[in-house]
Amino acid sequence: MRLASLTLAACLALAAVATADPAPPPNSLDAILAAAPASAWRDIPQDRLVYLTLPQGRVIFETAPRFAPNHVANLRKLAAAHFFDGLFVVRVQDDYVTQWGDAAADRPRGGAAARLAAEFDHPYGSDEPFTPLPDPDTYAPETGFTDGFPVARDPLSGRAWLTHCYGMVGAGRDLAADSGNAGELYAVIGQAPRQLDRNVTLLGRVVQGMEYLSSLPRGHGDLGFYEKPEMRTKIIGLAFGDQLPAAEQVHLQALRTDTPAFAALLHNRRYRQDAFYKTPAGRIDVCNLPLPVREAK
Amino acid sequence: MRLASLTLAACLALAAVATADPAPPPNSLDAILAAAPASAWRDIPQDRLVYLTLPQGRVIFETAPRFAPNHVANLRKLAAAHFFDGLFVVRVQDDYVTQWGDAAADRPRGGAAARLAAEFDHPYGSDEPFTPLPDPDTYAPETGFTDGFPVARDPLSGRAWLTHCYGMVGAGRDLAADSGNAGELYAVIGQAPRQLDRNVTLLGRVVQGMEYLSSLPRGHGDLGFYEKPEMRTKIIGLAFGDQLPAAEQVHLQALRTDTPAFAALLHNRRYRQDAFYKTPAGRIDVCNLPLPVREAK
Repeated sequence: MRLASLTLAACLALAAVATADPAPPPNSLDAILAAAPASAWRDIPQDRLVYLTLPQGRVIFETAPRFAPNHVANLRKLAAAHFFDGLFVVRVQDDYVTQWGDAAADRPRGGAAARLAAEFDHPYGSDEPFTPLPDPDTYAPETGFTDGFPVARDPLSGRAWLTHCYGMVGAGRDLAADSGNAGELYAVIGQAPRQLDRNVTLLGRVVQGMEYLSSLPRGHGDLGFYEKPEMRTKIIGLAFGDQLPAAEQVHLQALRTDTPAFAALLHNRRYRQDAFYKTPAGRIDVCNLPLPVREAK
Repeated sequence: MRLASLTLAACLALAAVATADPAPPPNSLDAILAAAPASAWRDIPQDRLVYLTLPQGRVIFETAPRFAPNHVANLRKLAAAHFFDGLFVVRVQDDYVTQWGDAAADRPRGGAAARLAAEFDHPYGSDEPFTPLPDPDTYAPETGFTDGFPVARDPLSGRAWLTHCYGMVGAGRDLAADSGNAGELYAVIGQAPRQLDRNVTLLGRVVQGMEYLSSLPRGHGDLGFYEKPEMRTKIIGLAFGDQLPAAEQVHLQALRTDTPAFAALLHNRRYRQDAFYKTPAGRIDVCNLPLPVREAK
């Protein structure tokens, strides 16, 4: 148990002390989450969740209709038509993306469009929620969170966009900006490829089962496509939560970013206070702060 | 073939045109590397390379003796004593690290130290090579490359340190800064955990076979440690290149960063010029520029 493993030990030691002394402020991720009231969490509705079932396990991602309303709506139609069932994970490029589906597949689409206008960014307006982060970002003037998603903003243009952090899900496309339709999706499995921001439509974030996308064998063809068909992973199904029987639904909650618990978490992640860290960074990148998600009790 | 897959097509199209017209400047990664002269590459000496052999395949990392001389020297002694042979990959935490070895193992060490002073950073001096990057970094005043490794610098303190980018290799330690010895190592397999910079001794970078560390099944114990021993991956061996028979050595070359080829690559990665990108970022993070490595012809 090395390399940061003592974080938990320090937390437990602190909890033991707290029975006798006035409780100190929680100083670890686990302690902050344990101390967060129920109101610090939001339920993720089933109609926002997409369940991608693979032989290895189930991946669940939350969709972002504020940022990609047409892609999310199109994905709903494709899912209802069982468009993905029996298609494959076709590409796993190390330190980049895992990609599945086939936008051009010749199968029932349930009225879904074959091409969609890009949803790369949008004007954010004064009423759009936004929890800003305090540190400078290499790629954008501002970063933070909206609806629980990592976001960048440009106050000069008044536009906001989702950022390509680990676990973000996007719609593959061809050369034309309007050539995607959410029939082919990818998830980021390495260092955030922020150069893709505002170049591809992001539509969600994996909230459970990420390992079933990130630990797949890498492809050895160009761009990580599998050269041998037998290396592909067959998709058992892809459906929104409200398209599934209740018994198959998972009830998830995500930490709200407009709460004291999030503020405490942000501070803790910028200034690690446990005994392992000798020089706290005092900074954080928007992609180094994956928002906590838990199963509802 | 979607999502940036047309980069290659655009490059090939360009190459076809170039037979008739004056050659345009290379505008893709592949074209830039193909045009780079032999002098743009440096041979990586065998005594700098470490070969970690797993049942799945061979991982090779280049060591950074300028930054971690004592850890690299200690690792050499451990390798010579076959310290790692038969130990295991014990931890795979998604979006964080893969970790192997056992610093406390009771086995021959060949005179290697059991504890080493931290090598978190060092005074860089005016003669230390450094290729700076032009864009702001969230975590450090300056970033760039030294000896082919991603580096951060603070001109105020005059200190430099390796950064925790994808594929970087470090020495696990316990709570005390001097509790590591390179008998337990980790590699970054997700978003760069830059909060670890200057908190753990980094000593190298994977230059071949990264997928054999990044695609392993994730552990489900605390911090991604495997709970079931049978999930661990057994280490067949770990040796420096010059400790291996010539027939087992791989001759690798890395792109030098003090060359026009690197400058062209940097420009290309900041301003993607192929038809896929609609809004080039114009920026790059030090962890988004993994240096090209090739097998020598």
